[in-house]
Amino acid sequence: MNPSAQRADKLSKLMTTTATLLLSCADQKGLVAEVSRFIYEHEGNIIHADQHTDLEESVFVQRIEWELDGFGIDRAAISAKFAPIAERFDMDWRLRFSDERTRIALLVSKQAHCMYDLLARWRMGELEADIPLVISNHADLAGVANDFGVPFHHLPITPETKPEQEAAIRELVDEHDIDVIVLARYMQILSPEFVAAHPNRIINIHHSFLPAFAGARPYHQAHERGVKVIGATAHFVTGELDGGPIVSQDVAHVSHRDSVGDLVHKGRDLEKTVLARAVHLHLDNRLIVYGNKTVVFD
Amino acid sequence: MNPSAQRADKLSKLMTTTATLLLSCADQKGLVAEVSRFIYEHEGNIIHADQHTDLEESVFVQRIEWELDGFGIDRAAISAKFAPIAERFDMDWRLRFSDERTRIALLVSKQAHCMYDLLARWRMGELEADIPLVISNHADLAGVANDFGVPFHHLPITPETKPEQEAAIRELVDEHDIDVIVLARYMQILSPEFVAAHPNRIINIHHSFLPAFAGARPYHQAHERGVKVIGATAHFVTGELDGGPIVSQDVAHVSHRDSVGDLVHKGRDLEKTVLARAVHLHLDNRLIVYGNKTVVFD
Amino acid sequence: MNPSAQRADKLSKLMTTTATLLLSCADQKGLVAEVSRFIYEHEGNIIHADQHTDLEESVFVQRIEWELDGFGIDRAAISAKFAPIAERFDMDWRLRFSDERTRIALLVSKQAHCMYDLLARWRMGELEADIPLVISNHADLAGVANDFGVPFHHLPITPETKPEQEAAIRELVDEHDIDVIVLARYMQILSPEFVAAHPNRIINIHHSFLPAFAGARPYHQAHERGVKVIGATAHFVTGELDGGPIVSQDVAHVSHRDSVGDLVHKGRDLEKTVLARAVHLHLDNRLIVYGNKTVVFD
Amino acid sequence: MNPSAQRADKLSKLMTTTATLLLSCADQKGLVAEVSRFIYEHEGNIIHADQHTDLEESVFVQRIEWELDGFGIDRAAISAKFAPIAERFDMDWRLRFSDERTRIALLVSKQAHCMYDLLARWRMGELEADIPLVISNHADLAGVANDFGVPFHHLPITPETKPEQEAAIRELVDEHDIDVIVLARYMQILSPEFVAAHPNRIINIHHSFLPAFAGARPYHQAHERGVKVIGATAHFVTGELDGGPIVSQDVAHVSHRDSVGDLVHKGRDLEKTVLARAVHLHLDNRLIVYGNKTVVFD
Repeated sequence: MNPSAQRADKLSKLMTTTATLLLSCADQKGLVAEVSRFIYEHEGNIIHADQHTDLEESVFVQRIEWELDGFGIDRAAISAKFAPIAERFDMDWRLRFSDERTRIALLVSKQAHCMYDLLARWRMGELEADIPLVISNHADLAGVANDFGVPFHHLPITPETKPEQEAAIRELVDEHDIDVIVLARYMQILSPEFVAAHPNRIINIHHSFLPAFAGARPYHQAHERGVKVIGATAHFVTGELDGGPIVSQDVAHVSHRDSVGDLVHKGRDLEKTVLARAVHLHLDNRLIVYGNKTVVFD
Repeated sequence: MNPSAQRADKLSKLMTTTATLLLSCADQKGLVAEVSRFIYEHEGNIIHADQHTDLEESVFVQRIEWELDGFGIDRAAISAKFAPIAERFDMDWRLRFSDERTRIALLVSKQAHCMYDLLARWRMGELEADIPLVISNHADLAGVANDFGVPFHHLPITPETKPEQEAAIRELVDEHDIDVIVLARYMQILSPEFVAAHPNRIINIHHSFLPAFAGARPYHQAHERGVKVIGATAHFVTGELDGGPIVSQDVAHVSHRDSVGDLVHKGRDLEKTVLARAVHLHLDNRLIVYGNKTVVFD
Repeated sequence: MNPSAQRADKLSKLMTTTATLLLSCADQKGLVAEVSRFIYEHEGNIIHADQHTDLEESVFVQRIEWELDGFGIDRAAISAKFAPIAERFDMDWRLRFSDERTRIALLVSKQAHCMYDLLARWRMGELEADIPLVISNHADLAGVANDFGVPFHHLPITPETKPEQEAAIRELVDEHDIDVIVLARYMQILSPEFVAAHPNRIINIHHSFLPAFAGARPYHQAHERGVKVIGATAHFVTGELDGGPIVSQDVAHVSHRDSVGDLVHKGRDLEKTVLARAVHLHLDNRLIVYGNKTVVFD
Repeated sequence: MNPSAQRADKLSKLMTTTATLLLSCADQKGLVAEVSRFIYEHEGNIIHADQHTDLEESVFVQRIEWELDGFGIDRAAISAKFAPIAERFDMDWRLRFSDERTRIALLVSKQAHCMYDLLARWRMGELEADIPLVISNHADLAGVANDFGVPFHHLPITPETKPEQEAAIRELVDEHDIDVIVLARYMQILSPEFVAAHPNRIINIHHSFLPAFAGARPYHQAHERGVKVIGATAHFVTGELDGGPIVSQDVAHVSHRDSVGDLVHKGRDLEKTVLARAVHLHLDNRLIVYGNKTVVFD
């Protein structure tokens, strides 16, 4: 194909709406055959399919994406048609369409690096999402939100007002029809109730080190210990603090030549990149959670 | 499952023989459904399946592995039964069984690092393969082969004797029923005829740099240029020098503090690891080549 | 030291102004002793010193940073006092003070990712620099500059108007007393005259691959070739296209699962991080160029 | 310089014996000047010097290496001449000569990968060291030691016989004049007494993960948790289990596609490389320990 034909072809692909099925269930015979038969029988053109069998846990997970154009079932009817198969195999499943824009709420505190990075990606069209609001317990980053034209909600928090503050967040989340809450260095621990109300819908970023350092000032501890590698981990938030299913991780090499300040800067760069990657994967419907882990169909 | 049950289960898995189908063809509807139906209809239990559609090239590739135990077709008859499907979709395909041990010929020259690494892995049982012989154009490494109990064939080469030397290699390769030739720093350019006779059956390792350096003494050039990253690339050998389908690559960070000698040492460590990884992937039947690229189903 | 004492101490360090000497010369005996004696004799407190001898080229390079507070020579007189030593050893050298803010001109084209990243770092106070202007041959990114409150100069270019356009850039650079020109995806080749007029003062970012791909559409080429690693390189601009002294490099692993678009996105993330790192190193006076390479005293 | 001149020059460099001084002390003015003056005054030609000031701890560390050829003090007398300077600044220091071969004792258990890797490097001349013995609590690897011509000492251990077994190891270590004990997957916890008797002379390798997993079967835990990165850490052994000064660390990316067995294999490759790197750095006298951290002058 010559370049211009390729570009045209590319464009048409971008215009094509796709359906994506994400499913997990106990491993059993005939699963792949049955799901692919469902799509094939209705003339679906599969453009991406990936599956994984966790032999230790006997769990089967699959992601399958096909073009709606030419598919024999109306998009509004696909769920109903697929439900009997899902029921037979006792599946956890989700159906998503590529033209549904995910709605993100950004929760921030005082540090701006992840917020800047995500808003810039959003403005450049790199994130297929809407970001209708930023919520923060501090007023510091109101100006940044304003520069990007995103409404900023300042909801201060004290130990006493935490329930009210979280209720206010939930109200905003509901009101704006938010799909996923991204904690872009929010620095507050959400209550178990808040977390339980948004399963696999809250993504957090935190630093991580080898060895791990509990308690305050982890970069100082890492420096005192002379670590040679620092990292960052993006994960879904669950009841267990920093213990939810890992989505994305990356590391950077450091040395004695790095001051605590250098570790902080390198850590921030990791946090930005790793959080953005997790958000991307979520927007592309590439994540399936089961047990306490995330399968990433990248 | 408790640990001891898990171990028992693990053991049984290791004893199970599997069949693996590797296939590529023009992308078309119904492929996934048809192949999975073939296995499902005969009661096959799929333990790994991965596929990929190259949208730019409209090529579909798939790897599918299932247990022979309980499969409704005798292993000797599977190929014949699958052939009509393969023909219908005009597939390139291979069927492999997990109890077939791949036979490797190691070609070496004077540098021992890759040879030591592969032979040690083989002796530790990490490589599911037989290594019935080492061939070299120099006698230097005869002692190493001897320590590992592998017959060593010294076949010197000069520009004049190259045809005879390659003929001698081919004779040894045929005689020992070799599946894959691993150039573990062999340092000789194989003739187009030799290469053409072993398509996707010769794996080479070479250094690689950003930017790339042609000509002699690449590590000196890299040092003079002050590169910050060095790499190594394992690839299948084709007619185009160092231009065959890439199987595996890795890099290491370097700095001005690394002398030429340090670059050489770090480069060797990369070469060892990257070549071993490519050999592993080949032994596990995880590589499919089409066009000039390798899909790695890791 | 307890945390609050440490913070106080930290603060005082940040308030301390330092002098940094960057020098290179032919390797010879007594260099280290002489330079350190110069600082010690005048009661200077060295807080960072690093040196390197390139044995292949017989070149000595050194970076030495000390506190001005308590130093026995007035800052305005240091250069004159050091000059005789520099002359004796025939050194290339520069003296910089930590309270001199580097002035940066950003040159951009249509792609915003590096521009957003640098402006956000600057606004967060991560870059100790002034960015008084953005220059572009296209108008597309005027809005981004405006959001960050930086004057935007649109200087279109055609093959015919190139000399005039470059003259206009030079005028702006002179007028704003610019120290370093950062090509944040500028996509234009600067003329040899322009480059020669700003030695080691222009930093560029470009993609890089193993193997290297010349010509247009490198990401498409990389995808067709099935590379497993992509990279980015920041370098000083010299007369040789993309061949100047390398400052910073990094890589990301990719696979057949990455489309051309994924390669582009991963490449952008690398470009952002690698260019920002190069700019940081330059602002911290950590780079010494000799021959065609950069020593990075990180 | 042309290639053959360069090689000759290289050779002569390799033949030159050097002295290396490693020192640490409280940071104070005049240190660098004094040490460099000492070498310069006696006509020493410095070929490598690196120093570091830990601002948080106010500690100064330095490595300085110079040619003995032409140096004005006889090698036997250098220590005595330097002692007054060391005393004045209250330094911890060591003087090493490049022609002193380090003597290594390898302690192993049942896993052979690190042992093979180190012995192969030693046989290829990559390690400037003698390895006069291998000690193990199991007999399994006697054959490997034998293949490499290294005497193997089988010293079984039970909770009851641990004191006697360690005494036997110490006797062998003393008898063979061992400089450094390398735990190449030894899998036994050495007693506090044993450790205290060999400060900064025992190097260990262990796996490491983000997040960290305590207890048995860490690779299973990592797999259950779905980590995306695994690592390995080489460190000096101190009284705190796995808590000694870190020398070297590296990581590998993993995914859900990696089985527990794949994690184990990738972990082994990391362990090999990271341990070998730590041993190299130690042999080259590039490590200085203070507090609980290691400065690596690479």
